Amino acid sequence: MFPRDRRTRNHLLSSSLLSTSPALSFPTPLEDGTLPSANLNATRHVNSPDSQHTANSPDSTGFPRQFARTRRFSLGVPRHFTVSPDGSRVLFVRTASGTDPIGRLWQYEAGTERLLVDPALLVGTAPGAIPEEERLRRERARERSEGVVSYATDAAARLVAFALSGALWAVRTEGGTPFSVPAAGPVVDPRPSPDGRHIAYVSRRSFHVVGLSGTDPTRADPTCADPTCADPGDTDPGHADPGHADPSGATDRQLARAEGPDISYGLAEYVAAESMHRTRGYWWAPDSRHVLLARVDTGPVERRYLGDPADPTKPPRAVAYPAAGTPNAEVTLQIVSLEGERVDVAWDRTAYEYLVDAGWDAHGPYLAVQSRDQRTVRTLAVDPATGATAVLHERTDPAWVELVGGTPARTASGALVLPEDDGDTRYLTVGGRRVTPEGLQLCAVLGVEGERVLFTASDDPLETHVWRHEPGHGCRRLSRNPGRYTAVGRGGTVVLAGATPRGDEVGVLRATGPDAAGGDEDARYQVIPSLAEEPLVTPRPRHLRLSERQLHGALFLPSWHEEGAGKLPVLLDPYGGPALQVVGRRRGWTGCVSQWFAEQGFAVLVVDGRGTPNRGPAWEKAIHGDQLTPALEDQIDALRAAGARCADLDLTRVAIRGWSFGGFLAAAAVLHHPDVFHAAVAGAPPTDQRLYDTHWKERYLGHPEEHPENYARSSLIGHGHLLRRPLLLVHGLADDNVAAAHTLRFSAELLAAGKPHSVLPLPGATHLPADDAVNEQLLHFQRDFLLDALARRTDGE
Amino acid sequence: MFPRDRRTRNHLLSSSLLSTSPALSFPTPLEDGTLPSANLNATRHVNSPDSQHTANSPDSTGFPRQFARTRRFSLGVPRHFTVSPDGSRVLFVRTASGTDPIGRLWQYEAGTERLLVDPALLVGTAPGAIPEEERLRRERARERSEGVVSYATDAAARLVAFALSGALWAVRTEGGTPFSVPAAGPVVDPRPSPDGRHIAYVSRRSFHVVGLSGTDPTRADPTCADPTCADPGDTDPGHADPGHADPSGATDRQLARAEGPDISYGLAEYVAAESMHRTRGYWWAPDSRHVLLARVDTGPVERRYLGDPADPTKPPRAVAYPAAGTPNAEVTLQIVSLEGERVDVAWDRTAYEYLVDAGWDAHGPYLAVQSRDQRTVRTLAVDPATGATAVLHERTDPAWVELVGGTPARTASGALVLPEDDGDTRYLTVGGRRVTPEGLQLCAVLGVEGERVLFTASDDPLETHVWRHEPGHGCRRLSRNPGRYTAVGRGGTVVLAGATPRGDEVGVLRATGPDAAGGDEDARYQVIPSLAEEPLVTPRPRHLRLSERQLHGALFLPSWHEEGAGKLPVLLDPYGGPALQVVGRRRGWTGCVSQWFAEQGFAVLVVDGRGTPNRGPAWEKAIHGDQLTPALEDQIDALRAAGARCADLDLTRVAIRGWSFGGFLAAAAVLHHPDVFHAAVAGAPPTDQRLYDTHWKERYLGHPEEHPENYARSSLIGHGHLLRRPLLLVHGLADDNVAAAHTLRFSAELLAAGKPHSVLPLPGATHLPADDAVNEQLLHFQRDFLLDALARRTDGE
Repeated sequence: MFPRDRRTRNHLLSSSLLSTSPALSFPTPLEDGTLPSANLNATRHVNSPDSQHTANSPDSTGFPRQFARTRRFSLGVPRHFTVSPDGSRVLFVRTASGTDPIGRLWQYEAGTERLLVDPALLVGTAPGAIPEEERLRRERARERSEGVVSYATDAAARLVAFALSGALWAVRTEGGTPFSVPAAGPVVDPRPSPDGRHIAYVSRRSFHVVGLSGTDPTRADPTCADPTCADPGDTDPGHADPGHADPSGATDRQLARAEGPDISYGLAEYVAAESMHRTRGYWWAPDSRHVLLARVDTGPVERRYLGDPADPTKPPRAVAYPAAGTPNAEVTLQIVSLEGERVDVAWDRTAYEYLVDAGWDAHGPYLAVQSRDQRTVRTLAVDPATGATAVLHERTDPAWVELVGGTPARTASGALVLPEDDGDTRYLTVGGRRVTPEGLQLCAVLGVEGERVLFTASDDPLETHVWRHEPGHGCRRLSRNPGRYTAVGRGGTVVLAGATPRGDEVGVLRATGPDAAGGDEDARYQVIPSLAEEPLVTPRPRHLRLSERQLHGALFLPSWHEEGAGKLPVLLDPYGGPALQVVGRRRGWTGCVSQWFAEQGFAVLVVDGRGTPNRGPAWEKAIHGDQLTPALEDQIDALRAAGARCADLDLTRVAIRGWSFGGFLAAAAVLHHPDVFHAAVAGAPPTDQRLYDTHWKERYLGHPEEHPENYARSSLIGHGHLLRRPLLLVHGLADDNVAAAHTLRFSAELLAAGKPHSVLPLPGATHLPADDAVNEQLLHFQRDFLLDALARRTDGE
Repeated sequence: MFPRDRRTRNHLLSSSLLSTSPALSFPTPLEDGTLPSANLNATRHVNSPDSQHTANSPDSTGFPRQFARTRRFSLGVPRHFTVSPDGSRVLFVRTASGTDPIGRLWQYEAGTERLLVDPALLVGTAPGAIPEEERLRRERARERSEGVVSYATDAAARLVAFALSGALWAVRTEGGTPFSVPAAGPVVDPRPSPDGRHIAYVSRRSFHVVGLSGTDPTRADPTCADPTCADPGDTDPGHADPGHADPSGATDRQLARAEGPDISYGLAEYVAAESMHRTRGYWWAPDSRHVLLARVDTGPVERRYLGDPADPTKPPRAVAYPAAGTPNAEVTLQIVSLEGERVDVAWDRTAYEYLVDAGWDAHGPYLAVQSRDQRTVRTLAVDPATGATAVLHERTDPAWVELVGGTPARTASGALVLPEDDGDTRYLTVGGRRVTPEGLQLCAVLGVEGERVLFTASDDPLETHVWRHEPGHGCRRLSRNPGRYTAVGRGGTVVLAGATPRGDEVGVLRATGPDAAGGDEDARYQVIPSLAEEPLVTPRPRHLRLSERQLHGALFLPSWHEEGAGKLPVLLDPYGGPALQVVGRRRGWTGCVSQWFAEQGFAVLVVDGRGTPNRGPAWEKAIHGDQLTPALEDQIDALRAAGARCADLDLTRVAIRGWSFGGFLAAAAVLHHPDVFHAAVAGAPPTDQRLYDTHWKERYLGHPEEHPENYARSSLIGHGHLLRRPLLLVHGLADDNVAAAHTLRFSAELLAAGKPHSVLPLPGATHLPADDAVNEQLLHFQRDFLLDALARRTDGE
């Protein structure tokens, strides 16, 4: 449901040109000899003073264009970090500039950068065909770039595998150019074995492993020339290992063959990727000889047909979409060996139909499963010889068990790393013991090395910091300055990626003292530069605590506005739903957009109300059974409190806009409180919660047959007759997450009720519209609509 | 492309409660014993004074609801007339009231009516499943009712066949209740043989004939119980006659079996039904032993996928839609005998790929074919023994040959009945001789009896009259009072169906003098009452001749407006495209809608400009190569002339609305002439003429590859950057004629150009939205949009 990145806590995203560390240094990027001069120029240009616009003005019309062309300022930011076991090297992906969308793979070592992969040299600059499964994987991951968008390494971080336009590629970090690896078909999610001798991948929903021993690094043909291995077909079901021999000597083995169009191996099913944050479907064993492999059967799942009404000649795509109250995909696990042996993993799938996460560490394979009602999550150990499982831990909650990224995990000694909710704190537990203090809210576990646990947590909802727990040393916060951080750590090195008030910032923290593997007091801090563009609008949030509930809000006023000089119409710009905060001590693209709206003449207020994360379990679960009332109440309370605080807010002219849950909230605001809200823009709003997916929606509202009242009161549908304010509904017609049906049905209800409203359908756009022109113009379009709607207010209500 | 009824000239539609004939009489409807009392009540109620509202007022808000519930005042109007050979009886269809949608079959004889078929007694009142082919047939025919919506009879008009919810039914006019006839599957377009011994029909795209000899009239089961005949399948192609024996004794023969999913027998292909006015695909021979049968292969045609984005679980429908410049369906003809023999009809299909019309009279089978460039139409005689064809006539035109309904035909003596364009007159010719005077524009040939030809023609573009030509007697006009008339005649009786200034009117003109078979000076005129509701709004058009071109316009002012009392904003309400006139001396639903808009505070101006029919071939063809410029120029000229004539028209506030071509014209008006037009509503507008169908669009613009410039200048696409006026785009998402892609692509172009606009997508709605609530609210929605848009005009441009 979310356009904004609710996965920041699990993913590594960011960096900056500026560092706030006292140990700050500015390493000069070292370009290797293969770097084309055009890219050098681009790099220089972006860092030149010319591109550092900071002036805000109402006519800084370039911002929407910049916002779109930089893909919300995500391009050029280093991300996807891997640290080598000894901590000496950091792999990462970064595009060549703040507007170049092609991800390139880099290695950072001893203060210098080396380009490992430039996709333009391998497959040219024309966008290639992306396999359908990969396209969907990227949609779920809200991936906004191209080229190298993900990669995986062996245990030593010396062999890197990645896919480009469906072809399998690898590169060795010690030197040499990337080489193509023959594959049986278009490749999705390739991952080297820990020993670096094989690469596993998914192709056409079947699971393959290719051996690297005979691969010729100079071979140019990226795909297998043998047509017989191009289609797994449906007639020869089950597991087979044709042992397809490539002329180059590489041996491709199909370890699991999709038995039919509804079956896939090695991929995450829809709700796992969209609503559980599990984006993968297989895990190598440490021995490099076995794989823990998910099989997904979407046979029982309802189909949705997604066509393109703007291009009716394009055949629609059938999508297995489990709507609330309908059957989920059947997800099972098996252990396959490179020799083709298979062991099925057994657990009570009737009681625990969701596979939340899985892994394979030194103690063996493990998994976490969850009941359909989401009130129980079990951590299970798997006997790899028999597939039998044993319960390691059970977590329950009367509302729902909130899934915490990176858990379950185990330390070297086998201690379980898990979250625990008690009172109003989400604790980190290691081996059953709470290791974090009361009031420090665990966000995510980032990694385990030996007995050390790297994690993120918040003691102030405006910030998220990276912490490390180590037996005997307790917990220590590694990120020092304000912001929202995440990290990757190994071998005494921690890569800290922070979204700070000054922008994205990536620092490599390298222990230098005698306790190099542990302490960081003597750490050296070096920056991996971001090539992201400096926004043409600089957010100027005033952070407020509002109303009895001490809601966190940020008020953005026009830079040209002098306080007391006159009343400003108000624009609320919330997300306001589960799993995503908007207010924080970081710049972020949302802050830029809010400020841009402020420059157009609004006082923009952004508030995180009940239901948003990192203010403790009770705050998070205040929306159980009713996703609307508390969320909307908090927006209204905050608005009134802000109005009392700042006399320049004109509460007779209040607009509200949002996307996804925020769009739902915006539409609900004008429906239910026309006295407070006078115009709204609702982007991709879920209008009928029954149309949304099982895992996300049953979590908050229960099963729709058991709790129809929860769905009724948390939906817009059924309340359309209340509308008496200007409302613009915007929706991507290719949205496979919040289907366009949400907006179309609600618009039809409004029409039938005789309620004027406006719709902007976006042909070809998904939940996160990708087209630069659309993203640019959407800002203008919303502004025009809202200014016009408020300007026409004459009734003085 | 047309929501309004461009087929009025070919179909028989109307009647009235009032007649203007001096021989007027008011026959009391005689209900037969089977009529349920509820229907009697309904009939009485509708004719009661209570329902005769005539007051106009700005707050007559009931009109939109009435407009929707009466299906544009079409319900209750007698239509689909058949006259018995001796002229004594008239069969017709009429629903039970002005809001009852269920068509019932009646027989009128000697001034009394008798109910032959009440569908509620046969299949209940719940709407049954309509076969897909029948649904499409109705969509093409703009059919707005249910129940008996069409029927066919034998030559004596004694046996009537019709389909209800896919079941085959028949009734004998001499008495007895309707009886079901066993059929091989869901039935489409059943037609008795001339001798009344068989009924032909189409089922699942295969062609069947069922014998009636053994049919038990009391048999209740409407469908064949034998599952083996339920599906023609695809594995046994070609012609076969399984001679399926029904237990009742009726024998069903499949005379042509659809060989695959792209093949159909006996149906009109898309462009025939939508753009050539040919809605049927087979014709009985007078001998009742042979059928001239069309075979359609849509294999070469591009597919469009029509899904329901508001109900994504509904599988999309693949539609064979021949867009301009792309391949048409392959249409061939064959003669099949009841014994299963087949003779293929041969003509030069390469040169003449369109089958325009066909028939079989006493002189044998004949057909009319047209070249792809539409500049040549040939009439061909078929040798039924060999299938060889001979050219009877060739008609050419440097622009296009306009197809005239009812032609070609032949008199008893074999004289060809054809149109002929010369100078600026479209003549009727019989046996190669012009029989109509210069200046009388032939509209359609309604029928031939002996040497007599019944036809419609206009000597004044505001009226269409029924004429009869008879050798030795010349031409005589039969409809006397102002209006637009059509007719059916036989055996000295003519049923005149007129749309008059007072509403729909059906009169039966029966010759009574010694020359009963010819003259009508002594004719008796009797009325078949309409049960249509009296509109809550009474149109008050002022007919104007405007500008140098003497354009026909109608000006509707609010009933409450006193001339000179103040300026009124202006609303242009055109269609303005080919084949449809809006201005005329008749009430019509368009006049009611225009008046309703006037009551909302507009001066509504309706103008038929160049390109509209019945002002002669040159007027009609002035738009060849450019469908926009002349049409729009005439709207503007007329507006200015009307403004000069009527000082109360405020030309600084001018809106324009329209549907289909009228929607295109409305959007083009604000795009190209923002100085003249200040707001627009465009319903179902064709924005990219390349997306429209071959026959309709190549007719006016040529082949898109040869004349891309014609398509570019006649499209909205490509000009979106010009928009600077409020524009509302309305489009049915299930429109299989003007696809929603037209509006969606144009909206996307507007967004990319940064142009604010509004879209109202209508889920489930076709080109003619069927939902009553939608049709009611669409009027309010447009009014609100336009009043709001004009109220906001402050720039004084």
